[in-house]
Amino acid sequence: MKFGGTSVATPGHIRRVADRLIARHEAGDRVVAVVSAMGKVTDDLVDLAHQLTAHPSVREMDMLLTTGEQVSIALLAMAVQARGVDAISFTGAQVGIMTSSTFSKAQILAIDAACVREALDEGKIVIVAGFQGRTPDGQITTLGRGGSDTTAVALAAGLSADLAEIYTDVAGVYTADPRIVPKARKIDVIGYEEMLEMASSGAGVLSMRSVEAARNHGVIIHCRSSFTDEPGTIVKEQDADMEQAIVSGVTFDTSEVKFTIRAVPDQAGVAAQVFSKLADHDINIDMIIQNISEDGATDISFTAPTGELDVAEQAVREAVEVIGARTWVVDEDVAKISIVGAGMKTQPRVSARMFSALAAAGINIDLISTSPIRLSCVVAQDQMEDAVRALHTEFGLDDSSAVDESN
Amino acid sequence: MKFGGTSVATPGHIRRVADRLIARHEAGDRVVAVVSAMGKVTDDLVDLAHQLTAHPSVREMDMLLTTGEQVSIALLAMAVQARGVDAISFTGAQVGIMTSSTFSKAQILAIDAACVREALDEGKIVIVAGFQGRTPDGQITTLGRGGSDTTAVALAAGLSADLAEIYTDVAGVYTADPRIVPKARKIDVIGYEEMLEMASSGAGVLSMRSVEAARNHGVIIHCRSSFTDEPGTIVKEQDADMEQAIVSGVTFDTSEVKFTIRAVPDQAGVAAQVFSKLADHDINIDMIIQNISEDGATDISFTAPTGELDVAEQAVREAVEVIGARTWVVDEDVAKISIVGAGMKTQPRVSARMFSALAAAGINIDLISTSPIRLSCVVAQDQMEDAVRALHTEFGLDDSSAVDESN
Repeated sequence: MKFGGTSVATPGHIRRVADRLIARHEAGDRVVAVVSAMGKVTDDLVDLAHQLTAHPSVREMDMLLTTGEQVSIALLAMAVQARGVDAISFTGAQVGIMTSSTFSKAQILAIDAACVREALDEGKIVIVAGFQGRTPDGQITTLGRGGSDTTAVALAAGLSADLAEIYTDVAGVYTADPRIVPKARKIDVIGYEEMLEMASSGAGVLSMRSVEAARNHGVIIHCRSSFTDEPGTIVKEQDADMEQAIVSGVTFDTSEVKFTIRAVPDQAGVAAQVFSKLADHDINIDMIIQNISEDGATDISFTAPTGELDVAEQAVREAVEVIGARTWVVDEDVAKISIVGAGMKTQPRVSARMFSALAAAGINIDLISTSPIRLSCVVAQDQMEDAVRALHTEFGLDDSSAVDESN
Repeated sequence: MKFGGTSVATPGHIRRVADRLIARHEAGDRVVAVVSAMGKVTDDLVDLAHQLTAHPSVREMDMLLTTGEQVSIALLAMAVQARGVDAISFTGAQVGIMTSSTFSKAQILAIDAACVREALDEGKIVIVAGFQGRTPDGQITTLGRGGSDTTAVALAAGLSADLAEIYTDVAGVYTADPRIVPKARKIDVIGYEEMLEMASSGAGVLSMRSVEAARNHGVIIHCRSSFTDEPGTIVKEQDADMEQAIVSGVTFDTSEVKFTIRAVPDQAGVAAQVFSKLADHDINIDMIIQNISEDGATDISFTAPTGELDVAEQAVREAVEVIGARTWVVDEDVAKISIVGAGMKTQPRVSARMFSALAAAGINIDLISTSPIRLSCVVAQDQMEDAVRALHTEFGLDDSSAVDESN
């Protein structure tokens, strides 16, 4: 049972999490909890570090930030014990979460978890610090974004648990963000591959890494609300019994900017030079499109994370000089809209339906990219919400029982 | 170089500690720093725990509180690195401070410190979390009161360091508390045994445990101010070269209360029954006196820590019933005054001089206890300051160059 920072933000919240753990324990389950740092604790620690240096070493940042989860596990263990139920807390290092030594984004290499098994055998509720581990030589590491979810899934795998429950502030995975699409429906069951595409294209509820880890180890995830007892969304291996919707969900992502380099000489190797420069600066390129050549010159467009804008601009500036392109522009007001569905593979008309629906809504499409079970378009950011709603309706995802607040 | 919580209370303070470490590093010393939690962080964590339970488990408290020092070491390492000097931080567990499993007051069993030596060999400033260690099976422990001083001394022993520097908010060890005795002088050098008696009888600057550890391992302590570069007080093995003052210092302690059990039957074994009861309740008895018998009954007085008052009262109530004493009283307005000096052993008239000086100052003596190099009296708390000043003058400790603010 994994609880994020908002679920343990105050002693009152921690008490409620303790009650949930105890309820499951008393129902006869062997319970392992994974928790994040309380509320804004991680942000406060980052602020402290930045008061000392603009560029703290990643090793010392990990030393600093792992204290956040350590505070949470101790307090949660106390809260459980205060209710008269035996509990014990462990840091990532203590449960033997062995990681690579890439501080701030370490990869889990192995999990021992012998001490967890032992404590469970003794009838205890076990509480483990999320987001952290240690290298084989004893350095303290953090797992980076989505780290606590990944801890939960990895522990579930290491313990051969029935499932990993990820508690969040939403009721599960939706066909679209309910804040934008009031008729969005909660998805009851979804396959790993679809969930991965959803996560990678903007659905924030589960991190890609945790879903990948679940797929790799066959861990069933139950993503559910920390406020209710309603079932949420089950993420598991796609099987024949599962509904194969053509489109399972519509997602959006406003975290990227679009670069266009104009009048690039249309010669072999030019695109390679551009993207080598970007790779030199460690820029994660998402979508790439090269227009049809006119007069021996072409335009190259691509998207890159907004957070890497400054470095990307520097890289593009260098590339433009090397290849002798005319000019370049960057557009920050873009959004990526994606439709995801395992049924898409066998439905050749999906892309045509997508483009038609967007055209009917008066939305211009910029870049397009595809995977076997995903179709993404870049559109103007101010048309994003209209685009998501149009696609949600087009592919029959609207919940007819929902109240449409736009009426 | 050990720095307490007030020395690392804010990022600004941490930067100043970093500068001190770097100055010593650049002077050619191999530098290991030991730090406590920032300012009031430990108190804040204790508050959080008490919001969840009145009686948190000691294991989980240690899990919670050790995060305080971990934050400090990470930030201090960043501050040193920000100045362009290589540094690395380690938790108590990481440097191999092996302890007993008595959570909240663990005893150091052994220190590995291989990683410290390695980092020093690489030219780094090493920063270690005070107050903490781990059991051989990986549980996180704290060392209890004075724990960070003890960490520093134990590390100095483990590394065969030249000395352990303990930085405090006072300039060193004084012949008496300068707040009470303006003419008190800083002691330049003092032997372990004298320092132990001073610490045990109220001088707060160094913890008894750290001095004991220093004596046991022959570690020289330099207790000095974190605000100046002035030399402080050296604590080392008493040797022939050292000045053997009859009295080195006058201390006081207001942390005890005095119990008197009246009209105790004067029979063999009665006192044993009383103190067995107190031992059953884990009360640390300090001074004991039994009056001369009158009419087959006697009075027994003893002192116990104020913090254990409730439990002690309960124990006394039980004892009075068992032994059939008439009644009992407790006096909270008492203070213990001590004179400490290695030269006392060969000066039989010291006690007479002490009692005369107190009598001349109109101060009534209540209980008396002695060790080979210490003489303690219990007096009324409102006469404590007068008593300290009278003894400080009597034994020639007044600094004639000091301005007496009472004039």
